[in-house]
Amino acid sequence: MSTAHTLNLDSLQQQVLLPGTKGLALKSALQQQDIPKQNWNVLNADTSFPVAVLKQTALQHNLAWMKQFCTRMQVVLAPHGKTTMSPQLFDMQLQNGAWGITLATVNQTLIAHRFGVKRVLLANQLISRSDTQAVLALMQADPSFEFFALTDSLDGVERIATQVQQSGITRRLPLLVELGFAGGRTGCRSQADALAVARAIHQSPYLQLAGIEGYEGLLVGKHRDQDLLAVRAFINDLVALTQQADAEGLFGGEHILLSAGGSAYFDLVGRGFETKLQLSRPVTAILRSGCYITHDHGFYHHLLHEMQARESTVDEDNLRPALEVWSMVQSRPEPDLAILTMGKRDASYDIDLPFPVQTHRPGKTSASIDLPAGCKIEKMNDQHAYLRLPKDSAICETLQVGDLVACGISHPCTTFDKWPLILVVDDEYQVQSAINTFF
Amino acid sequence: MSTAHTLNLDSLQQQVLLPGTKGLALKSALQQQDIPKQNWNVLNADTSFPVAVLKQTALQHNLAWMKQFCTRMQVVLAPHGKTTMSPQLFDMQLQNGAWGITLATVNQTLIAHRFGVKRVLLANQLISRSDTQAVLALMQADPSFEFFALTDSLDGVERIATQVQQSGITRRLPLLVELGFAGGRTGCRSQADALAVARAIHQSPYLQLAGIEGYEGLLVGKHRDQDLLAVRAFINDLVALTQQADAEGLFGGEHILLSAGGSAYFDLVGRGFETKLQLSRPVTAILRSGCYITHDHGFYHHLLHEMQARESTVDEDNLRPALEVWSMVQSRPEPDLAILTMGKRDASYDIDLPFPVQTHRPGKTSASIDLPAGCKIEKMNDQHAYLRLPKDSAICETLQVGDLVACGISHPCTTFDKWPLILVVDDEYQVQSAINTFF
Repeated sequence: MSTAHTLNLDSLQQQVLLPGTKGLALKSALQQQDIPKQNWNVLNADTSFPVAVLKQTALQHNLAWMKQFCTRMQVVLAPHGKTTMSPQLFDMQLQNGAWGITLATVNQTLIAHRFGVKRVLLANQLISRSDTQAVLALMQADPSFEFFALTDSLDGVERIATQVQQSGITRRLPLLVELGFAGGRTGCRSQADALAVARAIHQSPYLQLAGIEGYEGLLVGKHRDQDLLAVRAFINDLVALTQQADAEGLFGGEHILLSAGGSAYFDLVGRGFETKLQLSRPVTAILRSGCYITHDHGFYHHLLHEMQARESTVDEDNLRPALEVWSMVQSRPEPDLAILTMGKRDASYDIDLPFPVQTHRPGKTSASIDLPAGCKIEKMNDQHAYLRLPKDSAICETLQVGDLVACGISHPCTTFDKWPLILVVDDEYQVQSAINTFF
Repeated sequence: MSTAHTLNLDSLQQQVLLPGTKGLALKSALQQQDIPKQNWNVLNADTSFPVAVLKQTALQHNLAWMKQFCTRMQVVLAPHGKTTMSPQLFDMQLQNGAWGITLATVNQTLIAHRFGVKRVLLANQLISRSDTQAVLALMQADPSFEFFALTDSLDGVERIATQVQQSGITRRLPLLVELGFAGGRTGCRSQADALAVARAIHQSPYLQLAGIEGYEGLLVGKHRDQDLLAVRAFINDLVALTQQADAEGLFGGEHILLSAGGSAYFDLVGRGFETKLQLSRPVTAILRSGCYITHDHGFYHHLLHEMQARESTVDEDNLRPALEVWSMVQSRPEPDLAILTMGKRDASYDIDLPFPVQTHRPGKTSASIDLPAGCKIEKMNDQHAYLRLPKDSAICETLQVGDLVACGISHPCTTFDKWPLILVVDDEYQVQSAINTFF
């Protein structure tokens, strides 16, 4: 990874980590930049347990993979920063060609800007007066800061126009109209409604119509065939809306932004946006996948396998899971049960419980052992996990108190927000550095 | 609330909050101690949204209520600090007579000690060498720091004895034997096993048998009658084990610690521990409820209602829900659907989704409106909640984009860990101060 940073990460390197920092076993204060000198190895149990780790090789692979994917599809990436909220990871994403960072809230935007992010797509609307004032003040104070937000109603346009007017800011606020679908989340429910919103933005002296946006990632149902039809139809609708708004001359930026794409169907979005749009100005097609950077062992793992089956450019060597949570066996109270030192405070539980992958008896020389099929985290309390072992299997005999257990996770977003600091490790689990998160 | 603090909270008051601090809408840096001067009111939408608030009156009520409960039951309280991990709340608990703070991990212990907590009951075992070394170093460095941990196996006793020996610490490490039950979590599965562990502790020159511990709070099943029988039987087992260990002269402290009690059945624990134990030395009966301090609108609300039915001292004016998450209506895309600016990043979803309680159109003069029955958060994404409104109800007409929605939560532990800073409000939702959490 390059050492020339795009963002200002010095304050993070210089910060002092105190005893109690989750994931570390500190006896005294330590500057973050001194972590690499500690010679910590997870397999040697030098950290605290639980500990969350990012596998550097997988991370680098995923960054390069997505860069190549976007180049091939002729789209740009504004990765959703809410996944990680990590300045160091934002930096890696920007160094790998990201167009900007997508965020979900004004406070996330303020944090990203603090570390030097200069282009933010807020994949949400500006609603609250105080939040809106905070971000408009930032735009006023930093003319180089580009900020885009969504809107999905005429009311919303009026509210935001009033707030921009009251702020006294001299540049127009660029907005994307959000198209949704029946039964979905936010977003106009029809092309007609969306066009009306686009016209209202165009007519306001305080606003600028920057583009069209949608989010197809919610179309994950029980019947994937139907999901895929719905996703393709929705992307076509986004394209059609963009053409219509352009035909009416509503867009106000140098480029027309056209954005969709979570981590489930970004291939379909890429393919859908490939349509050679004959518009009045250049189109910037923006994917927003956030989870690709670490991928996972569950939800996105399955979705990517499906993507591989339908998209020839997604080859065997696709995204790799980079995020693991390691804990220790705390108790072996019953022959087929191990209680681990991790729980809801440490790993995602919103889509799947963590996936136990391997075990390791602390010591650099002992070998890690893949856990056999049938090993399963069957429950988590706040600070405990219940690892059920296959009855009468060899692992029932061998797994001891003090053994390490590595778990993969499903849905990175809800693991990242449990770790203010995550260790970056090499292929031998030697600790190389740390990244910070801001939730 | 008294202003004389037991803990060292000055560093928190003096810390500088930067723009981006979740819950606040800051345009510039602000010292935490200046929050009361800002004249912020949640009902006036002066904060960011979502925002988590603690209702001061309910908090004070709960602190006083539990203090009185413990006095009546002749038990002491070591509230589980993992619930809140908040030094300011620990301070309030200690000022209200708490015997110490219960914690779940060594890192939580190090954080509590940093702010001046001098007595910690670790409701878990010391397993990892590096974590154990960190806490033993603390005991060595601060002779006034009292620390107790659990163990549930002969292996565990041997491991910890070796670690204490290697640390060179001169005082014995006080341990409680954990009794469990079949199908439960940690803890010896029989009195015989527990006694064997107690004897091993007694025999070690590095350890001291400080007491007996169990956790009945997991016995929440589908048939409460059976749960209650199991809880009572388990508490009897704890008492019997304590008597047996004392008869063998295994305890080594001045007092014998006898501890159980989560937030579900602390009345039964209190009653069960009332047995006038004729032992060789005084018994300190310790409850560990953590959630009482904020209570909730769901899980514990229901359990307390049951408690009220069976325990005459739990009167009508019992624990009150103190923790709410306020968000804003971001979109009204369909007649009976409102999308709120909060999600899995902001409120508990592990037991129940949040409970929408009331709505308020920003402005101090408008009145809050209780949401009608049938209003329900039916889903949350990372940063969005789906508030379903009863079809064709009046609220479908009146609820607008920009309206505030207050939600109660179920299971405080998994809301606290989403908020590094929580605002404390008076009965009019005027912001009085803030507390910090350390996860």
